[in-house]
Amino acid sequence: MTDILWIDPVGHDDFSEDIQVILQDAAHNGTNVDVTALDRGPHHVEYHYYEALVTPDVLHLVKQAEKDNYDATVIGCFYDLALEEAREVSESMPVAAPAEATTHLATTLGDSFSVVVGRQKWVPQMRSRIRQYGFDDHLASFRTADLGVLDFQEDPETTQRRLREAARAAVTEDQAEVVILGCTAEYGFYEDLQNDLGVPVLDAVTAPFKFAELLADLADFGWTHSKVGGYESPPVSEIAEWEIADDYEGADVWTENVDT
Amino acid sequence: MTDILWIDPVGHDDFSEDIQVILQDAAHNGTNVDVTALDRGPHHVEYHYYEALVTPDVLHLVKQAEKDNYDATVIGCFYDLALEEAREVSESMPVAAPAEATTHLATTLGDSFSVVVGRQKWVPQMRSRIRQYGFDDHLASFRTADLGVLDFQEDPETTQRRLREAARAAVTEDQAEVVILGCTAEYGFYEDLQNDLGVPVLDAVTAPFKFAELLADLADFGWTHSKVGGYESPPVSEIAEWEIADDYEGADVWTENVDT
Amino acid sequence: MTDILWIDPVGHDDFSEDIQVILQDAAHNGTNVDVTALDRGPHHVEYHYYEALVTPDVLHLVKQAEKDNYDATVIGCFYDLALEEAREVSESMPVAAPAEATTHLATTLGDSFSVVVGRQKWVPQMRSRIRQYGFDDHLASFRTADLGVLDFQEDPETTQRRLREAARAAVTEDQAEVVILGCTAEYGFYEDLQNDLGVPVLDAVTAPFKFAELLADLADFGWTHSKVGGYESPPVSEIAEWEIADDYEGADVWTENVDT
Amino acid sequence: MTDILWIDPVGHDDFSEDIQVILQDAAHNGTNVDVTALDRGPHHVEYHYYEALVTPDVLHLVKQAEKDNYDATVIGCFYDLALEEAREVSESMPVAAPAEATTHLATTLGDSFSVVVGRQKWVPQMRSRIRQYGFDDHLASFRTADLGVLDFQEDPETTQRRLREAARAAVTEDQAEVVILGCTAEYGFYEDLQNDLGVPVLDAVTAPFKFAELLADLADFGWTHSKVGGYESPPVSEIAEWEIADDYEGADVWTENVDT
Amino acid sequence: MTDILWIDPVGHDDFSEDIQVILQDAAHNGTNVDVTALDRGPHHVEYHYYEALVTPDVLHLVKQAEKDNYDATVIGCFYDLALEEAREVSESMPVAAPAEATTHLATTLGDSFSVVVGRQKWVPQMRSRIRQYGFDDHLASFRTADLGVLDFQEDPETTQRRLREAARAAVTEDQAEVVILGCTAEYGFYEDLQNDLGVPVLDAVTAPFKFAELLADLADFGWTHSKVGGYESPPVSEIAEWEIADDYEGADVWTENVDT
Amino acid sequence: MTDILWIDPVGHDDFSEDIQVILQDAAHNGTNVDVTALDRGPHHVEYHYYEALVTPDVLHLVKQAEKDNYDATVIGCFYDLALEEAREVSESMPVAAPAEATTHLATTLGDSFSVVVGRQKWVPQMRSRIRQYGFDDHLASFRTADLGVLDFQEDPETTQRRLREAARAAVTEDQAEVVILGCTAEYGFYEDLQNDLGVPVLDAVTAPFKFAELLADLADFGWTHSKVGGYESPPVSEIAEWEIADDYEGADVWTENVDT
Repeated sequence: MTDILWIDPVGHDDFSEDIQVILQDAAHNGTNVDVTALDRGPHHVEYHYYEALVTPDVLHLVKQAEKDNYDATVIGCFYDLALEEAREVSESMPVAAPAEATTHLATTLGDSFSVVVGRQKWVPQMRSRIRQYGFDDHLASFRTADLGVLDFQEDPETTQRRLREAARAAVTEDQAEVVILGCTAEYGFYEDLQNDLGVPVLDAVTAPFKFAELLADLADFGWTHSKVGGYESPPVSEIAEWEIADDYEGADVWTENVDT
Repeated sequence: MTDILWIDPVGHDDFSEDIQVILQDAAHNGTNVDVTALDRGPHHVEYHYYEALVTPDVLHLVKQAEKDNYDATVIGCFYDLALEEAREVSESMPVAAPAEATTHLATTLGDSFSVVVGRQKWVPQMRSRIRQYGFDDHLASFRTADLGVLDFQEDPETTQRRLREAARAAVTEDQAEVVILGCTAEYGFYEDLQNDLGVPVLDAVTAPFKFAELLADLADFGWTHSKVGGYESPPVSEIAEWEIADDYEGADVWTENVDT
Repeated sequence: MTDILWIDPVGHDDFSEDIQVILQDAAHNGTNVDVTALDRGPHHVEYHYYEALVTPDVLHLVKQAEKDNYDATVIGCFYDLALEEAREVSESMPVAAPAEATTHLATTLGDSFSVVVGRQKWVPQMRSRIRQYGFDDHLASFRTADLGVLDFQEDPETTQRRLREAARAAVTEDQAEVVILGCTAEYGFYEDLQNDLGVPVLDAVTAPFKFAELLADLADFGWTHSKVGGYESPPVSEIAEWEIADDYEGADVWTENVDT
Repeated sequence: MTDILWIDPVGHDDFSEDIQVILQDAAHNGTNVDVTALDRGPHHVEYHYYEALVTPDVLHLVKQAEKDNYDATVIGCFYDLALEEAREVSESMPVAAPAEATTHLATTLGDSFSVVVGRQKWVPQMRSRIRQYGFDDHLASFRTADLGVLDFQEDPETTQRRLREAARAAVTEDQAEVVILGCTAEYGFYEDLQNDLGVPVLDAVTAPFKFAELLADLADFGWTHSKVGGYESPPVSEIAEWEIADDYEGADVWTENVDT
Repeated sequence: MTDILWIDPVGHDDFSEDIQVILQDAAHNGTNVDVTALDRGPHHVEYHYYEALVTPDVLHLVKQAEKDNYDATVIGCFYDLALEEAREVSESMPVAAPAEATTHLATTLGDSFSVVVGRQKWVPQMRSRIRQYGFDDHLASFRTADLGVLDFQEDPETTQRRLREAARAAVTEDQAEVVILGCTAEYGFYEDLQNDLGVPVLDAVTAPFKFAELLADLADFGWTHSKVGGYESPPVSEIAEWEIADDYEGADVWTENVDT
Repeated sequence: MTDILWIDPVGHDDFSEDIQVILQDAAHNGTNVDVTALDRGPHHVEYHYYEALVTPDVLHLVKQAEKDNYDATVIGCFYDLALEEAREVSESMPVAAPAEATTHLATTLGDSFSVVVGRQKWVPQMRSRIRQYGFDDHLASFRTADLGVLDFQEDPETTQRRLREAARAAVTEDQAEVVILGCTAEYGFYEDLQNDLGVPVLDAVTAPFKFAELLADLADFGWTHSKVGGYESPPVSEIAEWEIADDYEGADVWTENVDT
């Protein structure tokens, strides 16, 4: 049995049930999916500030997930917020994220890809991520649908139309061979889009989840994030000595017989 | 049931049985593995010329594999020979290869990786591949074991020792966080190495196979290589008109009611 | 009068007084310097997790600083933690950070620079920053002194010796024309080092402070971080609606008649 | 006397006579030109698969050319198919190819160049080549004429018009300072184009041939492709031992007293 | 007191008085500004040839400025002509230039910037500079106003309109977060532009001057261009031995008891 | 008849006769070689300042060469000083230079090359050139012989030994497949070096000359530097109007019925 936790890094669970259904449907036999959201926090994370607020809670959830023997966790935001942080906090439980997973997959499916995002505001941070991953030479374009995170599921017809226009422009004008939907809230649209456009359209929910299943598998071979270098974990002794758990909500996750 | 074909792109099957055992052991429940080699050809493909000789036969095997309903194919050479060619030939059956799979995985496991190869001769071509994939900024080094492809399994103790020396230098001198064994014939060594070194050591047999399992899964979502752009297939009508099947061994794979 | 706030993003003020003295001494006539640390938190931020913990408090300090009419703020950590986040939160008060400031300056002082850091663990994150800033082609090397953040001021003679060894290697072996001390806790050493080595040695305390003075000046010309694009501020209405201030310590900084 | 062989890597000689005339006309006094095509094979090589089919025959022709004392060979396809392979097979006879030659020359004639190709399908592979050569920063654009390889000579007026439209867009919209015609079948058009456009328009037949003349000259100084590294030749003893000549048409080129 | 010299590298002083007023107004209390032009030479430096003519005179002015105890010099041309040369000639007096200063600042104010230039002719050289500085990934576009250097101040209304059109296109079509005016003769326009566009618009006169003030300050900490490496000064003994001063106007600046 | 002018951009002709002999020997039948040096100037151009001094005189020589109907000119300094400037000044006569020619050739002879220079001082400028040309990914290393320009011909045995040591280290430690001698004063040594090392060793005199012969040939096809963009020539009318010829030695080359 493989247990995978999807973390919705926001302070509401409006999308959680939908995502649970989508992922369980996409899962292997033998994979169990749990979806969780935060107890507090902003309702979307379009802004750096919102990301900053949710990150400690996400990390405590990741740490708890490892203690609860989850086989992998996915942090469900296309900024890949807290990804490096989570790999540092997790000793050996793999952590996946949408931008990393979809761009790694897209570059195996074609020479160039475009990302359809909601708003121009998101682009600099995502472009920076894609450069960091190494794929700037393969990025055909960003295209925007002019919709905020919370708009995508409001009026599916409008969303479908705007995503199609943006994706079509990516394919015909920017020569993208693959399209990525650059927000987890853009779930439910990829199939019609790829039927319309005739190119693979990667969804930011299912694709990183399937990548997480792979990472969970690979961990059996000892292949999880390296602890030599950037993902070296903080020493629990320091955390205890500085009484971090007294000052930060959720930080008591460190204090029950976890050992570095 | 998922059927995956591993192609040993050489004219002997000395490694095929070992690889079959390793892969079946690594496979999901429900995955069947077949390993095949070529009917003719060089015994290793360290040279461009040897790659050129085997490539048409590999492509015909890939085409046949798709007709035989394999769910994915892996071409077992770390040069990733015939990878783009195979994706062009295959309509929708995914194709994986060792360098692509291991470098994509390595960059999710750490910031920098090194590749332990047999001989310096291999380096320019592999470095070029890694640049093409986007990972030159994450490549810490190549390290050589001074062993040819056919030497790795000859004297496992020597091989183990030389790989360990090369990998240790990569970690301690070049600050690699992850090590990749850059030849499929380096199978059977990764576990001891990663126990010794304390960093993930990716094996060029198991890792691309697991990646192929993922790609086979993803094809169910319609996510396979794009047919718009570089992987557009050749028209069967041209192949027939030019009587390619009369002139090239194995090219009759195109002529039995395959339709573009 | 120009008022500049230096934020020590840690939960102790052991270095604050030293830094206050150094900066006031380095300041223009007419510049006032305040140094503040956090009310809670880890004693150093070598780990991503520690950065995540301190980031919201840093951002609330930045927001408060703008309300208090500071002319610029410096976030005193060489990871440049919370830099983009702070520029988003701040409407128009400039924000500076050590890695950005020192690498921008170093590339105007020579063709190549090296960064002397404490531990190898820091390197991947800093290298990623330097790539993001555009200076990877000018980065000669990282050199490590094998000292943690809290070690640098413990035994100044040892520190001086180790920094000198690392910096000398950077100059003679890696051909660095400029050396950067890659931690704010490495204060107090640069002068002797540059006298010894004959190359500029940029200090991670004074240099970003002077850069902040410039940024404060430039704001008079309307030249501060752009609000069109990645630094667009979160809408205060959302923050109020979601009752962020109830859930996050310090977030009430947003709720007193601040208007976007 | 300098003897240069142009290889049309296709199974027909429809263009060979034209190319022979063009090249002999372009040659130095003292240069003799031979043009040869293949005995079998596809009529164009727009697809990876077709390249794979023709490559072994091309390499055997290159090896034979060296035995026949040609001073240089040009492989006449803008994908630069078999270029590295040929340099491995050839001990010291230089090998040239259109994309390498024209892009090297274009970057000495201007800061930026565009390539006018037939179809979008060709672009990913050519872009990858240009990146490998180092010229992606100087590539202004690809522009397509929407013509296949076999169309270019069918209706010269249409071809001329479409090439002019594409090239003009490259100059006026993409600011290309130099235009490259990205297919050997686009011969015969460059002069009118450059008269119309007022920028150099490099032809994919004449330019690589002239580059081959230079390479032939340079070989007299010992300057031909390095045999230390990626172009190390395969050992003839292996080729004999594996009885390659029995299994591959044309591979007997290796077996008559050639010595590595 | 800080003394800063602005060098107009042209053979007329038509702009010098305006620039003097602008800079003195922008200066710190305690900064004195002098503006000088050349005794001979072209009236603009749009062409490489003109740059070549003025460079020796500029360098002699820089050397003289250092002897006259200026604290910093700015060479007022957006090609950053003679910048490296001047840093070699100057022992320790900092030298600033418009493209370096504005692009370094722009990348701290936003993720991407555009440069509004006069004519397309300028672009290749400026693009090359920006690549050299490391900012090609952050360059959104060049936009041209179709005005020569000497046109900008002729008809301010036309200039204002054309700059606004170009800058607006940069912001709305190319997603530039910051705009740079890429010619020192574009002075006097930035304020209205940034009010209109709502993004920072950096002026090529004031911005490099303020950067020079910073560099002058930093020199007090020993932070000026490194003399180990590319900026090593020429030996005065050689200059004397070869009687350079007899042959080149202004070269006698070296011969009065200057010591390397 | 093809006439090629080699310009020694220094104020002495100590090397001119040697170079004349080498080049005439290397030339095609039908190529005539002239070698010229400057009437004034430094004896080497290791420093930016010296380059600045000689550049106007070099450009006037280039302009005169075009008027004298030379078919191509080579500017004999590995910094490639005045190369872009010369292409601007020359209407259609090709101009070649050592670094451009040798690095373009080296990358066709192997995957990676090293440059053996005299002193570390030269490296930043040359590295910048090589990046500009696009070859930084192919640059294995710079190696220094610790000799100044004027030392190379002083004691040939010492020079030979030092060059060999540096080149051998490049091949064995840095895996260079090709070596470039990075100074025109390193003439006369390449043959013994390449015999010793077994890799091509490109000489900075002969190689750019042969490249110039090619460029001269290509000009017959209309393929010379583009006049649209960065190499647009300065208008003669401006030069006349500003009375440039009165103020700059040699500038009267423009004033005798030359027409743009």
